[in-house]
Amino acid sequence: MSNTAGQVIRCKAAVAWEAGKPLVIEEVEVAPPQANEVRLKILFTSLCHTDVYFWEAKGQAPLFPRIFGHEASGIVESVGPGVTDLQPGDRVLPVFTGECKECRHCKSEESNMCDLLRINTDRGHMLADGKTRFSINGKPIHHFLGTSTFSEYTVVHVGCVAKINPAAPLDKVCVLSCGISTGLGATLNVAKPKKGQSVAIFGLGAVGLAAAEGARIAGASRIIGVDLNTSRFEEAKKFGVTEFVNPKDHDKPVQQVIAEMTDGGVDRSVECTGSIQAMVSAFECVHDGWGVAVLVGVPSKDDAFKTHPVNLLNERTIKGTFFGNYKPRSDLPSVVEMYMKKELEVEKFITHHVSFSEINKAFELMLKGESLRCLINMES
Amino acid sequence: MSNTAGQVIRCKAAVAWEAGKPLVIEEVEVAPPQANEVRLKILFTSLCHTDVYFWEAKGQAPLFPRIFGHEASGIVESVGPGVTDLQPGDRVLPVFTGECKECRHCKSEESNMCDLLRINTDRGHMLADGKTRFSINGKPIHHFLGTSTFSEYTVVHVGCVAKINPAAPLDKVCVLSCGISTGLGATLNVAKPKKGQSVAIFGLGAVGLAAAEGARIAGASRIIGVDLNTSRFEEAKKFGVTEFVNPKDHDKPVQQVIAEMTDGGVDRSVECTGSIQAMVSAFECVHDGWGVAVLVGVPSKDDAFKTHPVNLLNERTIKGTFFGNYKPRSDLPSVVEMYMKKELEVEKFITHHVSFSEINKAFELMLKGESLRCLINMES
Repeated sequence: MSNTAGQVIRCKAAVAWEAGKPLVIEEVEVAPPQANEVRLKILFTSLCHTDVYFWEAKGQAPLFPRIFGHEASGIVESVGPGVTDLQPGDRVLPVFTGECKECRHCKSEESNMCDLLRINTDRGHMLADGKTRFSINGKPIHHFLGTSTFSEYTVVHVGCVAKINPAAPLDKVCVLSCGISTGLGATLNVAKPKKGQSVAIFGLGAVGLAAAEGARIAGASRIIGVDLNTSRFEEAKKFGVTEFVNPKDHDKPVQQVIAEMTDGGVDRSVECTGSIQAMVSAFECVHDGWGVAVLVGVPSKDDAFKTHPVNLLNERTIKGTFFGNYKPRSDLPSVVEMYMKKELEVEKFITHHVSFSEINKAFELMLKGESLRCLINMES
Repeated sequence: MSNTAGQVIRCKAAVAWEAGKPLVIEEVEVAPPQANEVRLKILFTSLCHTDVYFWEAKGQAPLFPRIFGHEASGIVESVGPGVTDLQPGDRVLPVFTGECKECRHCKSEESNMCDLLRINTDRGHMLADGKTRFSINGKPIHHFLGTSTFSEYTVVHVGCVAKINPAAPLDKVCVLSCGISTGLGATLNVAKPKKGQSVAIFGLGAVGLAAAEGARIAGASRIIGVDLNTSRFEEAKKFGVTEFVNPKDHDKPVQQVIAEMTDGGVDRSVECTGSIQAMVSAFECVHDGWGVAVLVGVPSKDDAFKTHPVNLLNERTIKGTFFGNYKPRSDLPSVVEMYMKKELEVEKFITHHVSFSEINKAFELMLKGESLRCLINMES
């Protein structure tokens, strides 16, 4: 046991006091883990769009002060009562969604949408007692996604912690705890292209490029990247993308452009933008008879997916996925192994590095669209 | 070889001279089969909604005079040049869609939508020469779906003929050449419920009941039948349906009723009505995480399938199917075998029998909604 076990830890955290305002590095108190919780020392964290979206708080009820952050790697500092499969010193990835291993979803081979620990963006407290583990001079600071990794120490439900190979470099596998696995799994677990098939990827941000990386790993013969920003095309080649389509360059729907390029449509498509128009295009660009379209991007509340039912009846499939259909505890260690075996290339996703004290720079880079992943080093 | 090979055969056929008018039994000339064609002696045929739809010709350009009929069983009378895998005397099912075995679809394990012989409702002639094989005193009579089984003899492309077990009773397996296989395959090949799962079937006509039969064979624990006609519920029990929902009995959407009955949704659903509202309900009534909805029913031209994309993102799947994903020549013989092994019960679909001379009665029974399948005996 560490000598901080059972004690309140005072450490630095980047606190968001108000929507859209720069985070402030503060000294916070982190309470010990309660039943079925673990306290983690975060070593690396990275910024994901979801952090920025809820920090901006334009589309939802604001919940502040709050500690954001959910893509991270760290080490178990101490465990609460009832935790048997983790111990201090374990190397782990905290995850924004969980796996209780007991509900119908966890028991289903097909689902990773745990009833107990499924992502909840509104909740700012821990499940056990409805309270926060963070405070400043007794004033509670809200959690985010049950992870709050923009803190040197954080408390997480044991069901949201994946224990990984202790030899894995935490400054690399950090990015596997959210976006990269989301895109990768969408292709490998859901779209499942066969060797030699063609795949279209809508949106060439980090998630889309991870989907392309999945297609590359699966042996796709053609990987067609679709994005409204032509400047992304050059970088996308590193991720296996072989051809590019910018819908703005054409006066017909992009699904038609792709059908013409591919003798009737691609074998698989993966939609990573969240734009409803891209979702419809991603579906309608797959070949009849066997085409499968996979939706990853999260749409706005009022959108409606709309297509002629004959597009479905002609033996096309559309499926949605969440976190690449990976079960956090059961499956994420194997994604880390893919990296360790050099099947999956992670380094190319990490385009920027900043120290924890410069965390607001990571937000600026993302808002400008300049970074894929900006790694935040908690110890520098 | 039969002694009619190479000769024009004069025989009886039920000719539709005008849209919606009773068929007339006429003596027609049936030309010998051309290259890659076979001439069949039809022994049994049955009436399917598609025949009635194109006979009424309310939704499409009328093509008359025409010989309808596409669900049938018979014996090969003679074969045209190039036909090597069928010979006179073979017992067969003609099929309204084909399998050339050479196109991308036929070579794909996943598709049965043959590029060459895919269903074509507009074509009234044979592919080889653009001419009809039927005539009356030299006046051509149009084909329907490449099968035209309302004739004692008909000519069919070899790719649209399934050779079956010669021991199979043709007065039973007749109905496997279209509707029953469509519903059965939708469940067994596409929805693929696991033993013990729940399945909702929308529409309890012959195709829907065949989908229920598939669920029964797969070992579904609950089979929920949905239909606007409560009188269908009693008969549906014979097909494994365990519970019934009439959407008219509820003041909330049927998908919500089903979700409440099943702790969040059924595991699988199969839509067999073609109503766009039923399609949306069939999709939205499946459980998140693993639910699969399969569309079978053919909608009208202007319909749009519309749902909130979050319903997809929560790990639901929707797929369409055509002819239950069976490849006619490769797979239909095995459906006949399911019947021969008594796994599949066919008799209960055949609710009425008429002689060929009474064929218009079969139309009346279907229009009144009184029959599932009315068997037409060509020899009585």
